[in-house]
Amino acid sequence: MRQSNLFTKIAKDFPKEEVSINAQLLLRAGFVDKLMSGIYSYLPLGFLVLKKIEEIIRQEMAAIGGQEVFLPALHPKANWQLTGRWDCEEMLKVKNREGKDFGLGWTHEEIITPLVRQFVSSYKDLPIYVYQIQDKFRDELRSKSGLLRGVEFRMKDLYSFHRDEKDLDGYYEKVKSAYFNIFRRCGLAEKTYLTFASGGTFAEYSHEFQTETLAGEDTIYFCPKCRLGVNKEIIEKEKFACPQCGNKELEIKKTIEVGNIFKLKNKYSKPFHLTFKDEKGEEKEVSMGCYGIGLGRLMGTIVEIHHDDKGLIWPREVAPLNIHLISLPGGEKQAERIYQDLLAWGMTVLYDDRLDKSAGEKFAEADLIGLPLRLVVSQRTLEKDCLEVKKRTEQKVELIKIKDIKKCLN
Amino acid sequence: MRQSNLFTKIAKDFPKEEVSINAQLLLRAGFVDKLMSGIYSYLPLGFLVLKKIEEIIRQEMAAIGGQEVFLPALHPKANWQLTGRWDCEEMLKVKNREGKDFGLGWTHEEIITPLVRQFVSSYKDLPIYVYQIQDKFRDELRSKSGLLRGVEFRMKDLYSFHRDEKDLDGYYEKVKSAYFNIFRRCGLAEKTYLTFASGGTFAEYSHEFQTETLAGEDTIYFCPKCRLGVNKEIIEKEKFACPQCGNKELEIKKTIEVGNIFKLKNKYSKPFHLTFKDEKGEEKEVSMGCYGIGLGRLMGTIVEIHHDDKGLIWPREVAPLNIHLISLPGGEKQAERIYQDLLAWGMTVLYDDRLDKSAGEKFAEADLIGLPLRLVVSQRTLEKDCLEVKKRTEQKVELIKIKDIKKCLN
Repeated sequence: MRQSNLFTKIAKDFPKEEVSINAQLLLRAGFVDKLMSGIYSYLPLGFLVLKKIEEIIRQEMAAIGGQEVFLPALHPKANWQLTGRWDCEEMLKVKNREGKDFGLGWTHEEIITPLVRQFVSSYKDLPIYVYQIQDKFRDELRSKSGLLRGVEFRMKDLYSFHRDEKDLDGYYEKVKSAYFNIFRRCGLAEKTYLTFASGGTFAEYSHEFQTETLAGEDTIYFCPKCRLGVNKEIIEKEKFACPQCGNKELEIKKTIEVGNIFKLKNKYSKPFHLTFKDEKGEEKEVSMGCYGIGLGRLMGTIVEIHHDDKGLIWPREVAPLNIHLISLPGGEKQAERIYQDLLAWGMTVLYDDRLDKSAGEKFAEADLIGLPLRLVVSQRTLEKDCLEVKKRTEQKVELIKIKDIKKCLN
Repeated sequence: MRQSNLFTKIAKDFPKEEVSINAQLLLRAGFVDKLMSGIYSYLPLGFLVLKKIEEIIRQEMAAIGGQEVFLPALHPKANWQLTGRWDCEEMLKVKNREGKDFGLGWTHEEIITPLVRQFVSSYKDLPIYVYQIQDKFRDELRSKSGLLRGVEFRMKDLYSFHRDEKDLDGYYEKVKSAYFNIFRRCGLAEKTYLTFASGGTFAEYSHEFQTETLAGEDTIYFCPKCRLGVNKEIIEKEKFACPQCGNKELEIKKTIEVGNIFKLKNKYSKPFHLTFKDEKGEEKEVSMGCYGIGLGRLMGTIVEIHHDDKGLIWPREVAPLNIHLISLPGGEKQAERIYQDLLAWGMTVLYDDRLDKSAGEKFAEADLIGLPLRLVVSQRTLEKDCLEVKKRTEQKVELIKIKDIKKCLN
């Protein structure tokens, strides 16, 4: 991608009304645009990050047998009345010209459960694992955290359907591992903790994945021995001790909830009569689990964790492009050749071919945009048959021979 | 993909309340599910088709310089009031808890124009080509045509921004070619015609891409010499003659509008003050174009054109998977091996490994699902070291040697 073609531009100043670091940096670097509080547009660089996150999630969902679907955002009122959630205050509602009511989905149990019911009659039809990556809506009044809390937000929601709780329990553990893979690949491994959360009346505890950052709106009690958290709602129940080892020396941490997993059991299979016949012909209720990750929130969290005073620092797997190639005076021709080579080798490149920007401006923008590897070609480097290589995570600048360029790409 | 794992199942009967062929076939084959009139869920096979169509569109948009973004569905009332479109009857509206009004976007001029304005000041910032693939909403009362007319529907919308009409005209022709590429790759080349349509007050004519089918809700007057259409709205203006060659012997055809392209000129740049300074420092309004394709409608149209009395017949590039591999008694082991080989060669395969279905059932389902190539492995074929090969578009069934399997994959 030639930077001279990229229609977005770097903003000179931090947007003043934004208090959150993720929104400040993403807006300034042209990754997103704010349409309203809690509602953002993804611009080309931001959209590429979103696609990278989606790809990681798809791979990890496929690895645990997830089948991808896409469910509507507009939901019939009747489905939500059946579960008693039509009047939840987070539901945005729509009335059409004929006075018919629709809800804008903020979750999809009310849709997926009757859908799956069409295909389940026997124990042989189970288990089923279905997920989607889809935009949800929530009547959210305090949206001051950039991408961390949205009115319109992209979610991955996975639903699992089992013949009994034992089968649900086994799959639940698989999802836990898949979630840790996702957060690891997004660069959040070190700061993301499995956290015990309240599971309502249907499972003693559900689990959240909480990432430590001062930008977090949540608080957890953290057991350093088990690397486990307990959320605020249930720490009293646990008498301020780690539910796993009993340790009472817990640390208080500010966190963001980047994922959550619940055992729903028969909470939705009951009202929707989602049942199956077992080997003996007895009719039983399906046991369900649900598992969510907010993609915008995940992107915002990555930014909160990976930035410095110069800008964004994208972890390798979620970087919008692999390389920022900068051409400086005298290096234009060679830079063009290197750009073509890099593309031919399958790299994705933001190529700063602009002639009206100074070296200082180009470097500052590269730091702000935060691609993992910066390559610079100028008259000075070419005099030594070299280009300059710098990783965004390091201060060190190296000169390497142009013929050795492949070595620095790993 | 193992068919024994696929959670959807083939419906025995055609859904009675559906009158359109695309909905009948897609529902019966488990590609989509109908949540409400005009609102469908995409199930695993249908979602794969959608992704194939998206991929074709992305490639063709990239080829004409399109930069991909993703804009919100919830829009602020003020933007739509500014253009006088807030009270359009197709707009679904939402009020939040605090009484704030939002519209659900059915198009995005009101969002993209002020967004692009942030990045345009000089003629050097133009042209700009921005597109998205995003779900739109429309208060549509007569949704009886399956995927052809949706209340919630996925669109590709491209917007172009130019310094003058000449530049817009040039890009408009490029988009025309890109659109024909898209429709060709979707298997609609022979039946899709460029059609003159009314362009409002801003361009004499806009253009639609109309695909001939009896399921169509539109009517065009078709000039067989030019292979051009004129739509009903403007045929009187043209005195029932081809606007290109003057031919008066026009054919009347039933069609579906699969795409449309408009020269908006300053219609939206004026209210949003989207201007630029030219070389002389004079401030001028940006000339805009907009270009739409409905993805669900396109998928429905492909079905209307490509099916027979046995089921769906997917054109190669939009088929959800390349191959339907069927194992019959005695062929299970060899089928498993072939399945692994096909995957290793990069093919996508629906592998009918089910043990509780008869050959007749498996063949009928394969015809209904409509993948391009059917391979059958059974004791009978293995006696000759062969498998059976049949194209969905042909009646002919061939036996080919297993060692020659690669030959039939092109």
